[in-house]
Amino acid sequence: MRIHVVNPNTTEAMTEKIAAAARAVAAAGTRIIQGQSAMGPASIEGYYDEALALPGLLQAIRVADADGADGHVIACFDDTGLDAARAVAKAPVVGIGEAAFHVATLVADRFSVVTTLSLSIRPIEHNLSRYGLGSRCARVRAADVPVLALEERNPAACDRISREIEAAIAEDGTDAIVLGCAGMADLAAELSAQHGLPVIDGVAAAVGLMETLIRLGHRTSRLGAWRPSPPKPYAGLLAGFALG
Amino acid sequence: MRIHVVNPNTTEAMTEKIAAAARAVAAAGTRIIQGQSAMGPASIEGYYDEALALPGLLQAIRVADADGADGHVIACFDDTGLDAARAVAKAPVVGIGEAAFHVATLVADRFSVVTTLSLSIRPIEHNLSRYGLGSRCARVRAADVPVLALEERNPAACDRISREIEAAIAEDGTDAIVLGCAGMADLAAELSAQHGLPVIDGVAAAVGLMETLIRLGHRTSRLGAWRPSPPKPYAGLLAGFALG
Amino acid sequence: MRIHVVNPNTTEAMTEKIAAAARAVAAAGTRIIQGQSAMGPASIEGYYDEALALPGLLQAIRVADADGADGHVIACFDDTGLDAARAVAKAPVVGIGEAAFHVATLVADRFSVVTTLSLSIRPIEHNLSRYGLGSRCARVRAADVPVLALEERNPAACDRISREIEAAIAEDGTDAIVLGCAGMADLAAELSAQHGLPVIDGVAAAVGLMETLIRLGHRTSRLGAWRPSPPKPYAGLLAGFALG
Amino acid sequence: MRIHVVNPNTTEAMTEKIAAAARAVAAAGTRIIQGQSAMGPASIEGYYDEALALPGLLQAIRVADADGADGHVIACFDDTGLDAARAVAKAPVVGIGEAAFHVATLVADRFSVVTTLSLSIRPIEHNLSRYGLGSRCARVRAADVPVLALEERNPAACDRISREIEAAIAEDGTDAIVLGCAGMADLAAELSAQHGLPVIDGVAAAVGLMETLIRLGHRTSRLGAWRPSPPKPYAGLLAGFALG
Amino acid sequence: MRIHVVNPNTTEAMTEKIAAAARAVAAAGTRIIQGQSAMGPASIEGYYDEALALPGLLQAIRVADADGADGHVIACFDDTGLDAARAVAKAPVVGIGEAAFHVATLVADRFSVVTTLSLSIRPIEHNLSRYGLGSRCARVRAADVPVLALEERNPAACDRISREIEAAIAEDGTDAIVLGCAGMADLAAELSAQHGLPVIDGVAAAVGLMETLIRLGHRTSRLGAWRPSPPKPYAGLLAGFALG
Amino acid sequence: MRIHVVNPNTTEAMTEKIAAAARAVAAAGTRIIQGQSAMGPASIEGYYDEALALPGLLQAIRVADADGADGHVIACFDDTGLDAARAVAKAPVVGIGEAAFHVATLVADRFSVVTTLSLSIRPIEHNLSRYGLGSRCARVRAADVPVLALEERNPAACDRISREIEAAIAEDGTDAIVLGCAGMADLAAELSAQHGLPVIDGVAAAVGLMETLIRLGHRTSRLGAWRPSPPKPYAGLLAGFALG
Repeated sequence: MRIHVVNPNTTEAMTEKIAAAARAVAAAGTRIIQGQSAMGPASIEGYYDEALALPGLLQAIRVADADGADGHVIACFDDTGLDAARAVAKAPVVGIGEAAFHVATLVADRFSVVTTLSLSIRPIEHNLSRYGLGSRCARVRAADVPVLALEERNPAACDRISREIEAAIAEDGTDAIVLGCAGMADLAAELSAQHGLPVIDGVAAAVGLMETLIRLGHRTSRLGAWRPSPPKPYAGLLAGFALG
Repeated sequence: MRIHVVNPNTTEAMTEKIAAAARAVAAAGTRIIQGQSAMGPASIEGYYDEALALPGLLQAIRVADADGADGHVIACFDDTGLDAARAVAKAPVVGIGEAAFHVATLVADRFSVVTTLSLSIRPIEHNLSRYGLGSRCARVRAADVPVLALEERNPAACDRISREIEAAIAEDGTDAIVLGCAGMADLAAELSAQHGLPVIDGVAAAVGLMETLIRLGHRTSRLGAWRPSPPKPYAGLLAGFALG
Repeated sequence: MRIHVVNPNTTEAMTEKIAAAARAVAAAGTRIIQGQSAMGPASIEGYYDEALALPGLLQAIRVADADGADGHVIACFDDTGLDAARAVAKAPVVGIGEAAFHVATLVADRFSVVTTLSLSIRPIEHNLSRYGLGSRCARVRAADVPVLALEERNPAACDRISREIEAAIAEDGTDAIVLGCAGMADLAAELSAQHGLPVIDGVAAAVGLMETLIRLGHRTSRLGAWRPSPPKPYAGLLAGFALG
Repeated sequence: MRIHVVNPNTTEAMTEKIAAAARAVAAAGTRIIQGQSAMGPASIEGYYDEALALPGLLQAIRVADADGADGHVIACFDDTGLDAARAVAKAPVVGIGEAAFHVATLVADRFSVVTTLSLSIRPIEHNLSRYGLGSRCARVRAADVPVLALEERNPAACDRISREIEAAIAEDGTDAIVLGCAGMADLAAELSAQHGLPVIDGVAAAVGLMETLIRLGHRTSRLGAWRPSPPKPYAGLLAGFALG
Repeated sequence: MRIHVVNPNTTEAMTEKIAAAARAVAAAGTRIIQGQSAMGPASIEGYYDEALALPGLLQAIRVADADGADGHVIACFDDTGLDAARAVAKAPVVGIGEAAFHVATLVADRFSVVTTLSLSIRPIEHNLSRYGLGSRCARVRAADVPVLALEERNPAACDRISREIEAAIAEDGTDAIVLGCAGMADLAAELSAQHGLPVIDGVAAAVGLMETLIRLGHRTSRLGAWRPSPPKPYAGLLAGFALG
Repeated sequence: MRIHVVNPNTTEAMTEKIAAAARAVAAAGTRIIQGQSAMGPASIEGYYDEALALPGLLQAIRVADADGADGHVIACFDDTGLDAARAVAKAPVVGIGEAAFHVATLVADRFSVVTTLSLSIRPIEHNLSRYGLGSRCARVRAADVPVLALEERNPAACDRISREIEAAIAEDGTDAIVLGCAGMADLAAELSAQHGLPVIDGVAAAVGLMETLIRLGHRTSRLGAWRPSPPKPYAGLLAGFALG
């Protein structure tokens, strides 16, 4: 099976790191197709970046979908564009945020999230409520590390994440940690060993859930709001995005 | 004061109708500045259209904001881009969906929403939950009328909306109706008289709430997630959207 | 338009201060009619005072309503008697507590309330739940200042309120402050400038919302529980309160 | 032990019926003291009546409390004045609405309420939410019977209640019925036998809970908002209600 | 009336203490029948013990039920086996956890629980959510005392419980304490006097609620999921548990 | 990897069917170890059966765990004994109910459950609330088919399930169906094709999730309540269940 793992920002190093994390956990027979947005922000930090990341993300998904990808993983922890991607792709779509939350609930009654910037706390909290899993999350924390500082294994950034995990264990009454950024994908195993609790990376979680969906033959339901928008004219710079 | 009322789709007739509804209820001294997206879909029906409406909407808001608008009203009932608009504009921003919900709660313990397509029911329900007002909404209903059918006073469309209101009164245990589309702005008074309960139009409601915010001098808080994204490079077709 | 702003306690100095705050934000063409209860407690602190404030409040509202007021604002932060007032008045009614909460959500994802006595925390929390806005409130705090200490600008009282705002910013993860007493109406602008976040006063907020309701022609729905009680005999001291 | 069962309306026949229901279930050694409001509405139907019932109810409770009652039961299903009564009485206070809900949860996972007028549905729903038991209630229904029609065993009224119970069983997925009016106290056993499910009367339930509180020595906590209001002047018609 | 108070663990000293607590508060005419599991764990600490306590508990209940007990009280604070007991017994069943919560809400707007081991916090929290009373509980705390350490009045254990109550008053914004273990039944009155707030013991509370149910003639509804499982073969070690 | 799929009832035909369903979706390299309870009920219908299924289930899990299973799947839709199993097993544990719910949310905004007997509706609803996914479930329905009627492909049973799915699509506003019994595992693909929406079987879903957990190296957290009970004596028939 072919799983399209798409980075909705335009930073190649991050795309590579995400793809490597996906390949590291993929089952035999799974091929990871590495995708990246061709337009928009170099990283997604806050609502403005998120809004402008959508066109490039959706374009990448439409292209890979037409090329026959069996599933799409959106590799941004705030699950940027998940609704629109599901509405437009034939293949199923999973976000790494939701994937991490679902997997965490299987090994932890309650988990804390450690993300990058405090700017991301509320969007993550709103996603948790929307998914129904707010009651399973003890707290969303920020390590105060910019997304691109995670590109290479920056010791100061790792240290801040580690201290935030310690605080979560001491103060939140939590059983597990969810890492709140695709750029942290390479840290999970080490942090789990170091702190003695499950540490969940969303990229790995999403690959596992997507393999399950594909093997079981499940596709996005068209009965709800995840249907393509009815065809209509699109104007200006985005005229090319009109659905046939 | 100058209130920028922006239509996030590219259909001029709808922009005109919205601006007329806004002007009809504006206080003496309020000037309505009519705005419209310059790119993207001709109407917003479903998540894909909504995602592609964001760049044009945010561009229109940034321009009007730089021109000194005292407030922005987003005239699409699903409150398209509200978070991103708040994050990027200096002036306060109100969506017509949230405005209608808040005003409805002042005259009704519980309200029903009547929107256009069933595709829009879930996004509206999710907004209600996010805003905290889900418990005040008895039900979100669709009249099965495409958005652009409302451009001119189409008797068949009006009739469907009217029948949906009757059903809401009979079945939902509701006290008021919120009209779930900017294109219904001209119908509220008539439907209220006809059905004997408050019927709320979001455009009018949003103008009132925005006048209140401006008169009281309230601006969007920067302490939460409604802060501009940190400056960074933007690539490709959307390179021009990078924040200074 | 004529808006009746009624103080449900019997302290004239507070009535004057509330009316001044209302007039300061009223639109051109709005006339503020100053109302006051003629019986009951000198201030409302706790459930017993609140219960005994109801007859005087409802009498004042019935008189102003019969005199043709276009709307009523109940100027007590716990929205004393709001349900009964809506049930008995022809004109719409807004409480300053609910008004402040609604306005706060337009500029802040989450707000904290700073009220007078700890006795008032629970009633405010219960109101927030009832209105549906509990998820938008980070915390309700008390500055430990008696209501009547706010009559004149008492520096010690202001200082306590200011310290509670600082604590809210540091500990609650809040984006804005709602002032939880009609007697704080004159402090909002100054505290907002001082602390760098929106500070919402309910009297000002309620006048804005009421102007909106009146301009849009919305009246309290009679389909729910906000209907006059069926006429019946009233006995004893309160015999005069029977509905015609 | 002496339990003061107080009817917050002024209709003597209803006071008698309530006291009889209380005496029928009281344990050996329990003395039921029959109380009645001396002022206000002849029955409580809607928010206006409820507000005006408070002074008479609180006066009756203060008198019985000073006379050494060991506990007070407020015999109106909407638990009129429960917060204020708890704040002002030395002895514990239980409302018949809350009592019925608590007892119902011990024999039924989910229950429906059958009350008198549709005007009472929302206040009961709001109470359920406030108490935390909203998730245990399948539905609140009205039999469309005025309160005072229940004074004598009116066959038409009984029939309507019976039909509403049938509808609840067929449509609500409910396991038990809570009778939503003190005036229905004499119907519970018969309706339970007739319909084959638990039927709970609040007067009987409240007497049982109050005996438990008294035997266990529990009194209303003063740490929360159930504390007497601080002493202060009261004006006008209600001057006599000032707390010493 | 005869109330069967059953200890679902196999420790006789604890059974005696529980029965003594029950007898101390029982009304004149109530006979407490002391029950104990004949198989399984010596104390219930965590989910594994709880699961293995069920057969012995259900056997004891079936025997006492056949012997004509008028009601059953399950004397373990996590309400072990409450659903299954209700499904299989003719007489009504009350758990001491739920009993304590219900009684606490009658004298406190919000309560904290002080239990034995931290292992028990989550099961108690889940019970509170299930019962609907989660919003009434400020916090569930553990005193870090093993269940069997409470068998005799261990001063160190009492001291830890007392300190946890102090912490609850200082930090939780709570109005009352619920003691979270049957083994604490003898401490309630003393702790209440010492800390100046209601302290609720579940054994006493459950006896009171059960007397109420029996006096009112209420039995477990069979309309929901509290029905006996349909008869079927049982195999192996548990073959004797098959329902006739 | 070796996944232990355990049937908590004692019916061999059902154990075989479950194992076949598991093998049909297992990845290359996954070995399904078929497990079955050696004591207790022949099927689990209602709370009494569920309670008595626990000892046999936990014994089977302890044996397979000691034998080196990499993960355990509990193949009963009400997730019988999930907490206790997690507390006692070294390897991770997934229930087929929770697995089906999580997978359903990835392809459907809202799903309905179709289970066997109405007796099972409430336990499933309570599980959904506990897991946090209640808001994602439109309705739990029963097809009125006994569990063992599903052993062989009974056309009448299939027809009832099919009609319930049609009703769910027509009435619930649902996007997908979750089959609420391990005995329906062989029907999912066919029903999905027939009704045109995703139909989720929990056995298949749980195998996929378990493969993901094992491949990612995640184990049950010991920080919360999923820890082994402290060692202690066990008495009587169950003496052999004491933890070392």
